[in-house]
Amino acid sequence: MEGSRPACPTLVLALGGNAILQPGQRGSFEEQYANVRATAEQLVELLERGYRLVVTHGNGPQVGNVLLQNEEAAATVPPMPLHACGAMTQGLLGYMLQQALGNAAARRGLSLTAATVVTQVVVRPDDPAFNHPSKPVGPFYDAAEARRLAAERGFCMREDAGRGWRRVVPSPEPLAIRELPVIRRLLAEGVVVIAAGGGGVPVRALGDEGELAGVDAVIDKDLAAARLAMELGADGLFILTDVEAVALDWGTPRQRSLGRVSPGELRRYQTEGHFAGGSMGPKVEAALRFVEAGGARAGIGALHQALAVVEGRSGTQIVPEPAAGSLEAVPARIL
Amino acid sequence: MEGSRPACPTLVLALGGNAILQPGQRGSFEEQYANVRATAEQLVELLERGYRLVVTHGNGPQVGNVLLQNEEAAATVPPMPLHACGAMTQGLLGYMLQQALGNAAARRGLSLTAATVVTQVVVRPDDPAFNHPSKPVGPFYDAAEARRLAAERGFCMREDAGRGWRRVVPSPEPLAIRELPVIRRLLAEGVVVIAAGGGGVPVRALGDEGELAGVDAVIDKDLAAARLAMELGADGLFILTDVEAVALDWGTPRQRSLGRVSPGELRRYQTEGHFAGGSMGPKVEAALRFVEAGGARAGIGALHQALAVVEGRSGTQIVPEPAAGSLEAVPARIL
Repeated sequence: MEGSRPACPTLVLALGGNAILQPGQRGSFEEQYANVRATAEQLVELLERGYRLVVTHGNGPQVGNVLLQNEEAAATVPPMPLHACGAMTQGLLGYMLQQALGNAAARRGLSLTAATVVTQVVVRPDDPAFNHPSKPVGPFYDAAEARRLAAERGFCMREDAGRGWRRVVPSPEPLAIRELPVIRRLLAEGVVVIAAGGGGVPVRALGDEGELAGVDAVIDKDLAAARLAMELGADGLFILTDVEAVALDWGTPRQRSLGRVSPGELRRYQTEGHFAGGSMGPKVEAALRFVEAGGARAGIGALHQALAVVEGRSGTQIVPEPAAGSLEAVPARIL
Repeated sequence: MEGSRPACPTLVLALGGNAILQPGQRGSFEEQYANVRATAEQLVELLERGYRLVVTHGNGPQVGNVLLQNEEAAATVPPMPLHACGAMTQGLLGYMLQQALGNAAARRGLSLTAATVVTQVVVRPDDPAFNHPSKPVGPFYDAAEARRLAAERGFCMREDAGRGWRRVVPSPEPLAIRELPVIRRLLAEGVVVIAAGGGGVPVRALGDEGELAGVDAVIDKDLAAARLAMELGADGLFILTDVEAVALDWGTPRQRSLGRVSPGELRRYQTEGHFAGGSMGPKVEAALRFVEAGGARAGIGALHQALAVVEGRSGTQIVPEPAAGSLEAVPARIL
């Protein structure tokens, strides 16, 4: 693969929540910015090696905070709908990332422009997810508050095992990236593009003329990143998070990490239920979609080893089965 | 001037607050979106005539709401600094504008991409404005709350004639648009660029290596638009607001509207104090700066007559003095 790599390979990076907020932190600007600074240091190493980057990121804790602020001030300020809050977090987190990336580059004497493109992601109005809201967002409520929100605001509320009630929203499939031409153009110019933050603002078609409207839903950020990587024809999709690799039999004595794996083999593990619990499911699915659609390589690994993950020296590497007789016909490797 | 106009003139539009929120409205998403829809209808008329547009907008009421939400929830969620709240409103209002512009174009059968570029605007760390905070932001407080905020958060608080206490922040000069290369590139590709919302996020240099950091300040959005228009070499700067034209002796029986005026004459009116009160001061200053720096034309007029203002048929038109002997040597005209 190295020999056929184009001069400036384009990578889509999906940053996990730990890129911006660490467990136990309350989410002050200073805490978040310190994390983003460390993240930018990792990413600038990739830029130094000539990779072109599109950066996507999660927004769960941040949009949760915005929703809570909206509720607390609801008597004075009309609460914004979830899709609008998502756009706000794209502005906030994009600003932090673009500033920190520019600064990290400047410290190394590089000239770099990073830019945040507020991104709408189109979903199907008839996505089955709209009949099965499943994604919890925002704060916990007691039963009385939950009933009130359901009645007054039409929220779908669900009890979360002993911790109280929480709003759940649909998590539809990302169908298309509305601002794709913009992202593609900036990337071609060498701009580091921050896009589809939080999975993008979910929008659906209004009528047949191409009009769009926001919907209160949450698109999985890893699946949105995979869609973006496919539409861009990216050379790689890398999901950078707080674990070193994808694990089989996670949380059991037989737990073991996956190194290099073919999409066929990884699909089998998925079907066997290895990634059913926790947050690894969508990451594995995103990586699989990208490689099955013709992507050269996907990786899932630790953010603090970003360069090693991108270069195939760390993390789980999802690589297509080579054609019969190829020298690359090596079996999956367990780390 | 018409004869020398390039094929696709580039205009910077500065939208007044009424483009997004009308007097008396509380600021629900639906209210704001309805206004933005009407604004988009005005702007798409310009696009149909081949103008390339960069759109800037105010964010006063919206950032005020975000600050209030931050204060109300401060016991639970760490409040974000003002510069980060500004980035949030760029995401929010940019999203609304880019969606409404795309929809307005789609309704007319046009294919159009509008994109929001989260914009940082560089200010001088030693701008004298930092010694004289003057711009009120956010909610009103009673004297006790004001004292607490001054002590705990270091806010500069000022009493606002009988209405209570309010935070005041510096309003420094916009020096440079950090994301200029991105805006320029997208514009060249025919993208409608939404940039420098709320005057942009104010940032200052950290040390000598090109690093930037956000500062809690508010850059006047019209002055930021003028800076953007100058740096882009735009063909025109148009400030679209809720009044039909710039007025002399405003609020007196002798009030009269200015039609076509030279920058020299407008500077004289400014020096005489005609625009000292109200919000017209920065608009006049922004238009003057653009034309004095070589801009072909600036206009100040009503948003609902955007096309007429751009085409010179409405509003106050600030046009350079023609060279001696030019056929255009007409005196200023009072509407």
